[in-house]
Amino acid sequence: MKKLIMCAGLLLLPMLSNAQEQRSDDYVEYRQAAFNAMGWHFKKMGAMIQGRIPYDAAEFKRRATAVSVLSKLPGEGFIDETKNTELPTRLKSEMWYQQERFDQYMQNLIKATAELASKAGAEDKDDLRSTYGNTARQCKSCHDRFRESS
Amino acid sequence: MKKLIMCAGLLLLPMLSNAQEQRSDDYVEYRQAAFNAMGWHFKKMGAMIQGRIPYDAAEFKRRATAVSVLSKLPGEGFIDETKNTELPTRLKSEMWYQQERFDQYMQNLIKATAELASKAGAEDKDDLRSTYGNTARQCKSCHDRFRESS
Repeated sequence: MKKLIMCAGLLLLPMLSNAQEQRSDDYVEYRQAAFNAMGWHFKKMGAMIQGRIPYDAAEFKRRATAVSVLSKLPGEGFIDETKNTELPTRLKSEMWYQQERFDQYMQNLIKATAELASKAGAEDKDDLRSTYGNTARQCKSCHDRFRESS
Repeated sequence: MKKLIMCAGLLLLPMLSNAQEQRSDDYVEYRQAAFNAMGWHFKKMGAMIQGRIPYDAAEFKRRATAVSVLSKLPGEGFIDETKNTELPTRLKSEMWYQQERFDQYMQNLIKATAELASKAGAEDKDDLRSTYGNTARQCKSCHDRFRESS
C-alpha cells in the first residue's frame, strides 16, 4: 500500500511542476501587465505635455492618479521563481544580483508618481512639465540599467 | 513635381496603415493588461476569503484599493478600431452591438469594487465575504455574456 501511495506521489510530480511553472509565469505576465497599463497612461500624459494632443487638466489628473497607483503594483511580480522563465522578457539578468538598487529605483518611481499625481490638476500644463520630466527620468534610469533595449 | 509628391504620398500609405494597426493593437494589449492586473489582485483576495492563504486585513485593503482603481481603466481600450484585431482576444463580437449593456456591466463593476475597497480593512474576513461575492458576480455576468470561454 505504501508503495502504491509513493508511486501515485511520483505520478503527481510532473503535474505539480507544471502548475508551479504556470504560477511563476503568471508573475511575469502580471508585472508586464502592470507596466503596460502604467506606460499607457504615462504616454498619454506625455502627449499632452508635448502638445501632440490637447491638454485636459482633469484627464491629466485621472491618468496621473492611475500611474501613481500602478507604480506600486509590479514590484511583487519579481520573485526568484521567475528567473528562468521562458516567456519573452526584457529584464536583464543582472537585476537578480542588484535587487537593492532595483528596489531603490522602484521606490524613486513611486515617490515621483505620487508627486506628479498631487500636482496634477493644474490649469497650466507648464507647471507640470518638470515634475513629469522627473518621473520620466525615474523610468529611464531603471530601463537603462535593467531592461534590454528592444 | 506634383506627381512626385503624390507618389511620395502613396509610398507613405503602407507605413501609415502599419502605424495605425499598431495603435489599435496597443488598445487591445492595454485593456488586457488592465484586466490581468485586476484579476491578479482579485484572485489573491479570493484566496484569503476562501482560506487558501492567511487573511491579512492590510493586504486585503491594499489589493481591494488596487482593484477599485484598476476597474476604471480597461474601458477606454474598447474602441471601434479594435474590432478586427488579429491579436488573440476572448471578446465576443456581439459586444460591439450591445455596448450600452457592456457599459452598464462596467459601471456595475466599478461600483462593486468601490464598495469592496471601502469595506476592506475589516478585522474579520467574514464581514467581507458577501461584498467580495457581489464583486465576483459582476465579473461573471460580463464574462458570461461577452467573453469566450477558454
